[in-house]
Amino acid sequence: MPRTAETASFKFNHTMLRVKDPKVSLAFYQDVIGMDLLSVKKFDEFTLYFLAFNHDGRDLTDEEKNASRFSREGVLELTHNHGTESDPTFTGYANGNSDPGRGFGHIALAVEDVEKACARFDQLGVQFKKRPTDGKMRHIAFILDPDGYWIEIIPNQLML
Amino acid sequence: MPRTAETASFKFNHTMLRVKDPKVSLAFYQDVIGMDLLSVKKFDEFTLYFLAFNHDGRDLTDEEKNASRFSREGVLELTHNHGTESDPTFTGYANGNSDPGRGFGHIALAVEDVEKACARFDQLGVQFKKRPTDGKMRHIAFILDPDGYWIEIIPNQLML
Repeated sequence: MPRTAETASFKFNHTMLRVKDPKVSLAFYQDVIGMDLLSVKKFDEFTLYFLAFNHDGRDLTDEEKNASRFSREGVLELTHNHGTESDPTFTGYANGNSDPGRGFGHIALAVEDVEKACARFDQLGVQFKKRPTDGKMRHIAFILDPDGYWIEIIPNQLML
Repeated sequence: MPRTAETASFKFNHTMLRVKDPKVSLAFYQDVIGMDLLSVKKFDEFTLYFLAFNHDGRDLTDEEKNASRFSREGVLELTHNHGTESDPTFTGYANGNSDPGRGFGHIALAVEDVEKACARFDQLGVQFKKRPTDGKMRHIAFILDPDGYWIEIIPNQLML
């Protein structure tokens, strides 16, 4: 049951990350990570891209995708401030894991087979922060997205 | 359909934020936001708290909660580095929205009635970054969590 009637409708809809170059980020989150682009909202100075995994057994129509970006959980919003992709003075975004700027840590993907997923990431040239074989935690990995944000790869079942 | 067979099992499981004082943050995310505490993982130097909204029509057992933290989307992970809550030299975490440290932007809750949700937040003493009545975007709001992270409050239906 929801904890209170007042919060019963609440969903953790999305997480927003700023990205330098949407072409690079969209290729990564769609082709490497496997998310669908739900909708694009273009404003004068920035553009918002909403992505999520499709767990339905069928493709969604554009209308369904656009509606689902408000109604579901697990949406990733990428914000592109126009011009960063070609600005030689733009030094990139902070990934939240070093000072100054520590706060946000990572997003995480739950997957059926971490080793298999990581072998595929490797083939596709994805950068690793921590391979499954690095360190003590052999059942998880961390990859880097094109802006250097950490993405944790964890098994989708409880590991004891 | 999932975009590729290799990514068919992938879910956007969680987003991790560091918090200064878990007592304050857990009270906020449970009592004000309405999330359930799914599990707690204590290590020597830090403790991880996993929270999510329960959309089932019933309460979950502790085992179900613990399992769901791996299998579902919409989980929030709060990391507490032990000692920050009582360290007078600890200056707090960056919320990602100002330099240096810009990158992560916010998490967002989709709700049935933004105005009603915000009236309740007001009553509970929540800090606002942007009330629905501020600025041009009257259908959304931004509140601040105890560490100053922005939480966007958006309607759970497409608004044209």
